[in-house]
Amino acid sequence: MLKVAVVGASGYTGVELLRLLYNHPEVAVTCVTSEQSAGRPVSDVFPTLRGRIDLPLENLEPVGISEKVDVVFTALPHKAAMEVVPTFVKMGKQVIDLSADYRIHDPQVYGKWYDTHLNPDLLDQAVYGIPEIRRAEIREASLIANPGCYPTSVILGLAPLLKGKVIDPKSVIVDAKSGVSGAGRGAKVDNLYCEVNEGFKAYAVGGTHRHIPEIEQELSLLAETEMVISFTPHLVPMDRGILSTIYSAPNGKVTAAELITLYEAFYDGEPFVRVLPEGKLPSTTFVRGSNFCDIGVTVDERTGRIVVISAIDNLVKGASGQAVQNMNLMCGLPETLGLEILPVFP
Amino acid sequence: MLKVAVVGASGYTGVELLRLLYNHPEVAVTCVTSEQSAGRPVSDVFPTLRGRIDLPLENLEPVGISEKVDVVFTALPHKAAMEVVPTFVKMGKQVIDLSADYRIHDPQVYGKWYDTHLNPDLLDQAVYGIPEIRRAEIREASLIANPGCYPTSVILGLAPLLKGKVIDPKSVIVDAKSGVSGAGRGAKVDNLYCEVNEGFKAYAVGGTHRHIPEIEQELSLLAETEMVISFTPHLVPMDRGILSTIYSAPNGKVTAAELITLYEAFYDGEPFVRVLPEGKLPSTTFVRGSNFCDIGVTVDERTGRIVVISAIDNLVKGASGQAVQNMNLMCGLPETLGLEILPVFP
Amino acid sequence: MLKVAVVGASGYTGVELLRLLYNHPEVAVTCVTSEQSAGRPVSDVFPTLRGRIDLPLENLEPVGISEKVDVVFTALPHKAAMEVVPTFVKMGKQVIDLSADYRIHDPQVYGKWYDTHLNPDLLDQAVYGIPEIRRAEIREASLIANPGCYPTSVILGLAPLLKGKVIDPKSVIVDAKSGVSGAGRGAKVDNLYCEVNEGFKAYAVGGTHRHIPEIEQELSLLAETEMVISFTPHLVPMDRGILSTIYSAPNGKVTAAELITLYEAFYDGEPFVRVLPEGKLPSTTFVRGSNFCDIGVTVDERTGRIVVISAIDNLVKGASGQAVQNMNLMCGLPETLGLEILPVFP
Amino acid sequence: MLKVAVVGASGYTGVELLRLLYNHPEVAVTCVTSEQSAGRPVSDVFPTLRGRIDLPLENLEPVGISEKVDVVFTALPHKAAMEVVPTFVKMGKQVIDLSADYRIHDPQVYGKWYDTHLNPDLLDQAVYGIPEIRRAEIREASLIANPGCYPTSVILGLAPLLKGKVIDPKSVIVDAKSGVSGAGRGAKVDNLYCEVNEGFKAYAVGGTHRHIPEIEQELSLLAETEMVISFTPHLVPMDRGILSTIYSAPNGKVTAAELITLYEAFYDGEPFVRVLPEGKLPSTTFVRGSNFCDIGVTVDERTGRIVVISAIDNLVKGASGQAVQNMNLMCGLPETLGLEILPVFP
Repeated sequence: MLKVAVVGASGYTGVELLRLLYNHPEVAVTCVTSEQSAGRPVSDVFPTLRGRIDLPLENLEPVGISEKVDVVFTALPHKAAMEVVPTFVKMGKQVIDLSADYRIHDPQVYGKWYDTHLNPDLLDQAVYGIPEIRRAEIREASLIANPGCYPTSVILGLAPLLKGKVIDPKSVIVDAKSGVSGAGRGAKVDNLYCEVNEGFKAYAVGGTHRHIPEIEQELSLLAETEMVISFTPHLVPMDRGILSTIYSAPNGKVTAAELITLYEAFYDGEPFVRVLPEGKLPSTTFVRGSNFCDIGVTVDERTGRIVVISAIDNLVKGASGQAVQNMNLMCGLPETLGLEILPVFP
Repeated sequence: MLKVAVVGASGYTGVELLRLLYNHPEVAVTCVTSEQSAGRPVSDVFPTLRGRIDLPLENLEPVGISEKVDVVFTALPHKAAMEVVPTFVKMGKQVIDLSADYRIHDPQVYGKWYDTHLNPDLLDQAVYGIPEIRRAEIREASLIANPGCYPTSVILGLAPLLKGKVIDPKSVIVDAKSGVSGAGRGAKVDNLYCEVNEGFKAYAVGGTHRHIPEIEQELSLLAETEMVISFTPHLVPMDRGILSTIYSAPNGKVTAAELITLYEAFYDGEPFVRVLPEGKLPSTTFVRGSNFCDIGVTVDERTGRIVVISAIDNLVKGASGQAVQNMNLMCGLPETLGLEILPVFP
Repeated sequence: MLKVAVVGASGYTGVELLRLLYNHPEVAVTCVTSEQSAGRPVSDVFPTLRGRIDLPLENLEPVGISEKVDVVFTALPHKAAMEVVPTFVKMGKQVIDLSADYRIHDPQVYGKWYDTHLNPDLLDQAVYGIPEIRRAEIREASLIANPGCYPTSVILGLAPLLKGKVIDPKSVIVDAKSGVSGAGRGAKVDNLYCEVNEGFKAYAVGGTHRHIPEIEQELSLLAETEMVISFTPHLVPMDRGILSTIYSAPNGKVTAAELITLYEAFYDGEPFVRVLPEGKLPSTTFVRGSNFCDIGVTVDERTGRIVVISAIDNLVKGASGQAVQNMNLMCGLPETLGLEILPVFP
Repeated sequence: MLKVAVVGASGYTGVELLRLLYNHPEVAVTCVTSEQSAGRPVSDVFPTLRGRIDLPLENLEPVGISEKVDVVFTALPHKAAMEVVPTFVKMGKQVIDLSADYRIHDPQVYGKWYDTHLNPDLLDQAVYGIPEIRRAEIREASLIANPGCYPTSVILGLAPLLKGKVIDPKSVIVDAKSGVSGAGRGAKVDNLYCEVNEGFKAYAVGGTHRHIPEIEQELSLLAETEMVISFTPHLVPMDRGILSTIYSAPNGKVTAAELITLYEAFYDGEPFVRVLPEGKLPSTTFVRGSNFCDIGVTVDERTGRIVVISAIDNLVKGASGQAVQNMNLMCGLPETLGLEILPVFP
């Protein structure tokens, strides 16, 4: 039985980790932290947990926590993460960090999009934790940079095309849409029910969203050439889900059937990626609450463009579910343990 | 490993049964039926299931089905259920019927609110499957009348008050609110997104909802006197959840603290009923996707009335989850098997 | 052309006033205030107004404002309102106050439920502005206490029964449900999209909601006896709308048809109250965005209880629309001017 | 006072026409038709209208209707429209057809995407009714082909770029998102609340949506070259609104400021198009219930691509509001009459 800490347990990815880990037969969550709610039972902050996980929320003391657990999930904002992760690593813990702090290999790039990095030396050691691409490395890692939600949907959506050199790398346009939980649990007018409900908008238009460097880093590695993409995120009035509609120009003529064969081969044996048959399209509805990534592939015969659509639950495959998957790999457990749950519908 | 059939698998309670049973370590679903979609894989109707449950939907042939399974869940409309249940019973199957057909003991009452009963002789044999009230009988039963969603929330909300003779039985008013999945999956204009979204209404006002006889039957048994209640259902623009606000007049002066003690004693050891501490109130949010029933109890000091609020997920504790709980009891399995899942939030 | 100020224009009732007043042929809004956004155009805070109402938000200086307008709407929180209303009154303005500060005649009662009243002398002068009950007084008033949203729905729902002495005044139970805009525009975690969406809950259970004294004051005047009611508010995941389900016991046997006749007579000629024919029920959907109050009346023959259901848009008839209606009356304009708009559906 | 018929009044565009026309000072709606609900008052089908528009729904008899009205709005499905429009035209009525039947000039193209055209001779006579592009022709027309909802958002979003020859016509990708009312009021499982709510999906992917020929026809005229675009529609869980995110490659380097100047000049004096200042982005929230089209323009400096975002209410500027605007122009009335209403927020 692994003893696990969830650091930063009062946000949406925190509570989702608790939901999934409760379902995990080889894990006991023994520590949860929250600066703002320290002292209160976590089930007081999230009454969903009442009677099942009633641990008190603790202050974030990395050394003390390290002494009592085997694995640490850090579900903190960027910057707050890199203030504590080095201690957990030094103490020999397996660390899965859900922030952006260790995702970008180049500290200059991190500095440009975020802040000055506090421990750039750790960046080499961190493995970008997307199991479908980097399973072997994850198994050996002690620090996982758990991917962002948008990046997960985009990387899984494009990997077969890039690996297969099917498309012009300059042609990629990603039009992405996310549910509101992606905006976090902070008390902001912009995220009030009445501000978000019954409306749809784009944000961070024009190549300014912080997930871009992370996406381009991973796509460039897959394509073996430097990639620059157009990326526009949108906000959907729903709790959960990301759907990315990805446009690209093939190098030569291709059919949907050929591409689907390519995708099926690429993801053969993957437990959580479902390549849809021709004519079927993903919906966030069909992955809600689960660790699946559903991918549909189409060719627009009129323009020749490829349209890939990928759907995930931003809190599961886009955050906490993928984190548990990474933990399983790091700890030598079956990869799907605790994650074999079906989407909730309706 | 129990072999299980889900008869009527193309509705919302059907797919919820499949989600829960997939999570159950002692069950293999080996047969799913749907008249309207027979021949198609069930994962074609519900793409949430793709890659995990791809069984073909079969026609409903009770004898053939009985030959290949141990347990049958019938998730059919009333009337359709009583056309096939007798065969399953005769074939010696354990049957959990999610329709209204075997809930009402008196065929006259059934006839008044529904239709002429086709096999009134089975009514004696059927056990009204609410484990917190009737666990012992359920263990011995071969035919369970799985309770309605509203009735579950009301009966669990009132049982301690009635058993304890705390209230005037004539004073009960239930103001109940349900998410839209309670209305089923039929193609009706009234249940279109744009008709329901952003609106709130009452329906079946004035004592006409078909769940009333079932509620009154069970409350009367608990109170040991004939009960007649006011019951008004409302439609909430959300997928899942029932919240019942239950007003009653105590026989003498009581405090919230005393009542909560009473409720805690009544539900002591119950795995799925959570009596909230004084000052806390239930929300359907906190039970969504789970088998919990959360109950809060308050006394209005200005009027002396007791206000009980109970919240369930209508598709889980109000239907499919309770059905699995009943199956576990009937089959000698641990009662919570497959149901130890936490609510999904957000 | 009346010159009008909207004081406290950065909340939901403020922007709704602006929407309605823009539609009013005899009004020019010439001043809008907001402490927190002073200096910015109001259309920057509410982009719905862009190109139509681009006035800069001003600081709240009652004397200066009084010098340039004829009518003042104060859409401030309670307490903030009574700090400025006296100045507007002293300067001879027509004032419609949307806060609770002048609704309760007895400063002791106000003190018990809210705060110490700063200018109790003004309470006698203020008229509780519900035109269907108090039209003549409103015409003569210079200070209107604009009713609360819940109170409007309850008072209009019960007035005919109380005036007609039809019911036992002790028997009234109000189960009320409101959309989220009723909670205001403050940045609180509780009102975030993901906290509210897809959930339903009661709040302020047990007779603690601040609208109770205002409701009971008005009901008592109608009934000519002191009334104490049970009142439970609930939060519906939708932007707008209040539906109150009101239970009461008649003094003798009555039919729905008789009651509807009573209601039709009581509200005969009222432009904004629609009494529904027998068998029809209100929905917040059918009044959304409009100044209507729809009322349905039923008798539960099994229990003898009367069930009245009333529906309004909390921001229109429950706040800003009623405020404009009051302004029309105070200023000698046709009562429906600017308010003859139909509900928005879907 | 114009006498007006709304033919096909039982759908969402029908009821929206009635809402807007009720607000129009120079219009009296004297006839409403619905085959399926003939005989019932229209306020029985849409209780929002009760007490204000209680006309009985009539059968669709073009000759009889023509004898009693001046203007006819046909809000019928395609094909049904072209069965009756010729009669209205022959009878000398002003006709605004909201279907697709007269939008496409080339009957071959119509035939390919829809059906065989029944009266291709009328196509020359019909004017595609987008006032910002074709105001003069509309003034002279007697048959208006009222544009589709997606086309309106795309054409208004791209017109300045195409007229100004700013972009490569081959580079246009439109990623469009619509609220659910765009799917109509038919009783289909796919449009049930629980199927649509809390999910997001694309549909008609790969260049198959029927609005494509109409969009390309109009864009080609603006660009003076044949245009072929990528167009992917998506379904947003909300009642109203369309947001189109439009990607294109400029012929040379441009800045957002330059483009906004271009847009402001192009739409100078337009009452319903609001070009947003640099740094501001549209949301469907800010146009809900109104006839506005909000447009934001950005340049992605990393890729050089232009990103235009346009937002409308699909039922107003995307259907019924634009229809009323066209009627005003055809009938020599002020263009904004009846349409000067502000968006409803929240």
